Amino acid sequence: MVNDRIENGLDAVEEKLRRVVDSDVEVLDEASHHIISSGGKRLRPRLLFLSYLAAGGDELDEVVPMAAAVELVHTATLVHDDINDHSVMRRGKITVHARWGRTFALLTGDYLFTKVYEMMAPYGARMNMIMAEATVSLVEGETLQAAAAKSGEIDRETYKQIISRKTASLFRASAEMGSLIAGAGDDVVANLGEFAHNLGLAFQIVDDLLDIVGDPEVMGKPVGADVTQGMGVVAVHNGRKTHAAVAESEPDPMQQMMHRLRESGAVEVARAEAEEMARRARRALDRVPPSAARDELDLLVDQVLERER
Amino acid sequence: MVNDRIENGLDAVEEKLRRVVDSDVEVLDEASHHIISSGGKRLRPRLLFLSYLAAGGDELDEVVPMAAAVELVHTATLVHDDINDHSVMRRGKITVHARWGRTFALLTGDYLFTKVYEMMAPYGARMNMIMAEATVSLVEGETLQAAAAKSGEIDRETYKQIISRKTASLFRASAEMGSLIAGAGDDVVANLGEFAHNLGLAFQIVDDLLDIVGDPEVMGKPVGADVTQGMGVVAVHNGRKTHAAVAESEPDPMQQMMHRLRESGAVEVARAEAEEMARRARRALDRVPPSAARDELDLLVDQVLERER
Repeated sequence: MVNDRIENGLDAVEEKLRRVVDSDVEVLDEASHHIISSGGKRLRPRLLFLSYLAAGGDELDEVVPMAAAVELVHTATLVHDDINDHSVMRRGKITVHARWGRTFALLTGDYLFTKVYEMMAPYGARMNMIMAEATVSLVEGETLQAAAAKSGEIDRETYKQIISRKTASLFRASAEMGSLIAGAGDDVVANLGEFAHNLGLAFQIVDDLLDIVGDPEVMGKPVGADVTQGMGVVAVHNGRKTHAAVAESEPDPMQQMMHRLRESGAVEVARAEAEEMARRARRALDRVPPSAARDELDLLVDQVLERER
Repeated sequence: MVNDRIENGLDAVEEKLRRVVDSDVEVLDEASHHIISSGGKRLRPRLLFLSYLAAGGDELDEVVPMAAAVELVHTATLVHDDINDHSVMRRGKITVHARWGRTFALLTGDYLFTKVYEMMAPYGARMNMIMAEATVSLVEGETLQAAAAKSGEIDRETYKQIISRKTASLFRASAEMGSLIAGAGDDVVANLGEFAHNLGLAFQIVDDLLDIVGDPEVMGKPVGADVTQGMGVVAVHNGRKTHAAVAESEPDPMQQMMHRLRESGAVEVARAEAEEMARRARRALDRVPPSAARDELDLLVDQVLERER
């Protein structure tokens, strides 16, 4: 029952995303539909819907544009990330950057951001303030990551700041907005927000691990592409500053990183860290009144830990 | 009296801009303050304030964050434009792109966009919908311009679409938001919006002319840098499709364009077009009830036509 509603809601999100990015400016229209139709897990809309239902909401339609907006924030950042990372493949398809070039990728990302704003505007001040703060955090997190990549070093605290801002902030906002619009009290909103924040941390640690040890066929993109994520995983493990270059005999920083990761046991330690974040998420969820939607949120934790792409 | 209030309001806008972009992420903090402190005409905040006063508003403080937001939208697009145009100088200072590199310039532009959103959120649904639509238009206009630059041709209709979306839309939004929040009736809002739209068109035609025939010392940036703007001015003149390359004997497209502009009389025709837009702006302004602020808006038209930078 809950699952049917969520699936219907997610279909409505896809429809909304497709319609909202329509433009008479050909390249924006084409590039936006390209990235939207490449799929993705739609985890943030799912989280928003389930938070809404768990908080007592009963009219999923009222949060469809909001759920589309959180997915679109994420999508916009992917388009800009792919410029900065020179990525060619994303979700098994060519990136906007690789297909349309840097200028149009930059403008497509900007366009998607403005469409987020357009979808959110009708929800009024409180929701928009939550969303605005999450987007500020997100860009700050991306910037901390780019600065770490540039400097070639990262420590545990910086890694935590990065994943908290670039990922957990939007997870938290999704849960808070969904529960607030359902009319939940402060306690429920806070507990679902805390749940989502920790779920986001677990998600990002697993994501970074998959980027190193995942199967490229399943992932739809190359693994080992991001030295910073590799460094982040090491930082979680050893708590010391980690340098990209470790041995002059191996000139490729990523190969050095892969080597060190295999030797050090850092993968297992990072995995344990993700599981600890998942436990914290569950402890917050336990304080939310029981419901079928809450059970689905609990299952989401397993999906985040067990995913292979 | 009106002028003193406007100057005080603009000081408050500067203060607001400086405070809102503060970040513990060093590069965002530094790059944002760099671009904000490079000045600019603050034409959009001025237009918003005067529209607010002309529509009967009496508490300028209530529109300071909104006026800062319209200036920041403009600033964010400049930071991203400078990436796409490989610009090195802007307002007499080095660009964010040239000083911090492409990745951080991209993220700084994104950051400024999120700060716009943060400042606008408290104003509620109606204002945010106007602002969101203006930002969508703006990105569409930038994209049409980039597409014209890439294709190497532009016609009169496309040029008008570009300047209408990338410039006039935010001028119009500034006047509409300022007058709406002052409690003006539909007529006054529509007339001030119409005024601002035409003022924006005149402004952009003059801007494009200055980019070709302006004094680089006064402008604080090189002239003749933008082939598309040159083409646009020619397109306004001759109404035919204009190609960037005209003679194989002159391999530099900009030199070809400068040559053709001087020969063709296009500068004078574009100038006449700007003056026609200014007349339309004034006709709309005449339908607004007389006030000291309305007189200042009338003077703004002259400033736009007569400016040298």
